[in-house]
Amino acid sequence: MLVEKRGEVRRVSESELKELAARALTGCGAPADIAGDTAQILVLGDLFGIHTHGVSRILDYETRIAGGGIKPAAPMVSEQIAPALGRVDGAGGLGPAVGRQALRLAVQLARETGIAAVFVRGSNHFGAIAPYCWIAAEDGLATIIASNATTTIAPFGGTDARIGNNPIGFGLPRPGAFPFILDMAVSVVSRARIRDALARGEPIPESWATDAAGRPTTDAAAALAGLLLPVGGHKGSGLSLVVDLLAGLLSGAAYLTHVLTWIGNPDRPQDLGHVFIALDPARLLPATEYERRMSDFARIIHEAPPADPAQPVMLPGEREAACMAEHRTRGIPLPHRVYDRLEALASR
Amino acid sequence: MLVEKRGEVRRVSESELKELAARALTGCGAPADIAGDTAQILVLGDLFGIHTHGVSRILDYETRIAGGGIKPAAPMVSEQIAPALGRVDGAGGLGPAVGRQALRLAVQLARETGIAAVFVRGSNHFGAIAPYCWIAAEDGLATIIASNATTTIAPFGGTDARIGNNPIGFGLPRPGAFPFILDMAVSVVSRARIRDALARGEPIPESWATDAAGRPTTDAAAALAGLLLPVGGHKGSGLSLVVDLLAGLLSGAAYLTHVLTWIGNPDRPQDLGHVFIALDPARLLPATEYERRMSDFARIIHEAPPADPAQPVMLPGEREAACMAEHRTRGIPLPHRVYDRLEALASR
Repeated sequence: MLVEKRGEVRRVSESELKELAARALTGCGAPADIAGDTAQILVLGDLFGIHTHGVSRILDYETRIAGGGIKPAAPMVSEQIAPALGRVDGAGGLGPAVGRQALRLAVQLARETGIAAVFVRGSNHFGAIAPYCWIAAEDGLATIIASNATTTIAPFGGTDARIGNNPIGFGLPRPGAFPFILDMAVSVVSRARIRDALARGEPIPESWATDAAGRPTTDAAAALAGLLLPVGGHKGSGLSLVVDLLAGLLSGAAYLTHVLTWIGNPDRPQDLGHVFIALDPARLLPATEYERRMSDFARIIHEAPPADPAQPVMLPGEREAACMAEHRTRGIPLPHRVYDRLEALASR
Repeated sequence: MLVEKRGEVRRVSESELKELAARALTGCGAPADIAGDTAQILVLGDLFGIHTHGVSRILDYETRIAGGGIKPAAPMVSEQIAPALGRVDGAGGLGPAVGRQALRLAVQLARETGIAAVFVRGSNHFGAIAPYCWIAAEDGLATIIASNATTTIAPFGGTDARIGNNPIGFGLPRPGAFPFILDMAVSVVSRARIRDALARGEPIPESWATDAAGRPTTDAAAALAGLLLPVGGHKGSGLSLVVDLLAGLLSGAAYLTHVLTWIGNPDRPQDLGHVFIALDPARLLPATEYERRMSDFARIIHEAPPADPAQPVMLPGEREAACMAEHRTRGIPLPHRVYDRLEALASR
């Protein structure tokens, strides 16, 4: 959640923000359909409280568009390559639009075959994963979605960055409720948590990060100059490799150290890879049975005695659901500086 | 790896062990095909050094067969329900045979459609996941395989056992090498690691487990009476839920607290659920390109500077590969008590 100080943010409605984001992207050279798809994904990120992957990213995208690393009007190519497989070549375009197109194809194919996978190459940063899971779940489909990323983590037992903090997400519809959505990266914590500790002058647990030489550290500054640690040691490291094998190696995109850093190479496409697997639960269970089982599943988790009585046990997605409800009532909080910059881009 | 003391184990060849295991299962009432499939999966577990999920399990299976909880001759039903979806009802039969049949169907469908998923209900303990990944990889296919399990872990923020230490595995062929295989459960460590700490009289890290009341503990005895902790807190807890939603809820099997404990109910089927997703990489990349990329991928990881110079960085599966090579040369180590009991069952 964005920390809100009086006067620093303005509240913007979902529809207004979607329109503003789309106009800003059009101002950066994106055709209307690509701008619309990108805006949809980023605004959903903000709506769910994932502001690090919301419309503020358009400002970063603009830098890379100016440098040539993102081509906002790139002609992406989308093709079916087997009854249940698709491929999208993003041609270096805007990641969220590339991802949105891949999801569309995955959903279409999964409706025909029950399960389908779309592999994406030539993409860029595609926002958070939760928005894609949400869109598919609203259409009644379950999803497994993942992306590779710039290398920031050492493989288990190693001391330099060779794997990405690769995100993987899972979504399932919950009839009458916000979907089950687990959207996670493989690191124990995000860099933001370490920056917070540094700001408070506090040490960090040894399990969070290493220093630049790959040694575990409790010093937040050394950790920020070092490497994040993956959850469960070899388990998180292995999960990151799995994501890169599917999203990067199999898709034909860059992988591991072949992925260019975002900041160092503003003029070159990152050639990120994603994978979108969609599954139609209606082929497995009648709707009433699915609904009954899903509601029973949620009940069992909700009724777990909580460690902290003030914090009932929640399902993945329920925090995002609460954010969405609040943001739809009060508007989405947007720092003035982001709003003003988007307006400037929109007026180009 | 099995700790070997002189005289406690005998070395048995892979083919001899497979035959002995199959005969023992036939002695328990399994038809030849079911005994053969079960023996194949369990012997691969031993071959890979996963002795906790090897032929010694037949002794546990026999207890449940005697009680009625496993029906060794159960007529499992296997059906295609969409172009890329299958379902197997294990009818309470031997888990490894049920899983082997589901894998067969998943591979067959994936060859036709590119990717396919088979959902399994009415199953029992199906051994380790690595053997299934290995079999599919030998056939050129990538896999995602998972199973639910008896509840032994609290959902994140909760204090009682409502989720399983659910295993999930991923396999990809590596031409000319042992496949990439990541076979993991969601807990930070296994109970065996905690038992080892107790035996040595050592405390355990707070991140491993809680006591019976759900409070983090460094006391190994209290931890063994308590609950394992999942990797990454909400991340591991969320992954366990994802596995149960796919393998349990969607398959039509039992899920969460509906899964009966193995020990408490020897006479009742557990109704475990599994999911087998198979993917044909040949649909995505030409064989030479796949081989080139996979070998480059492995090189990048192997060349990572190691934290301990004596421990080069490995890919998931390479420890199992080393075990297999050693066991194929020297034979698979089997405790005499297991060998003798299998012989007794085989002679029934």
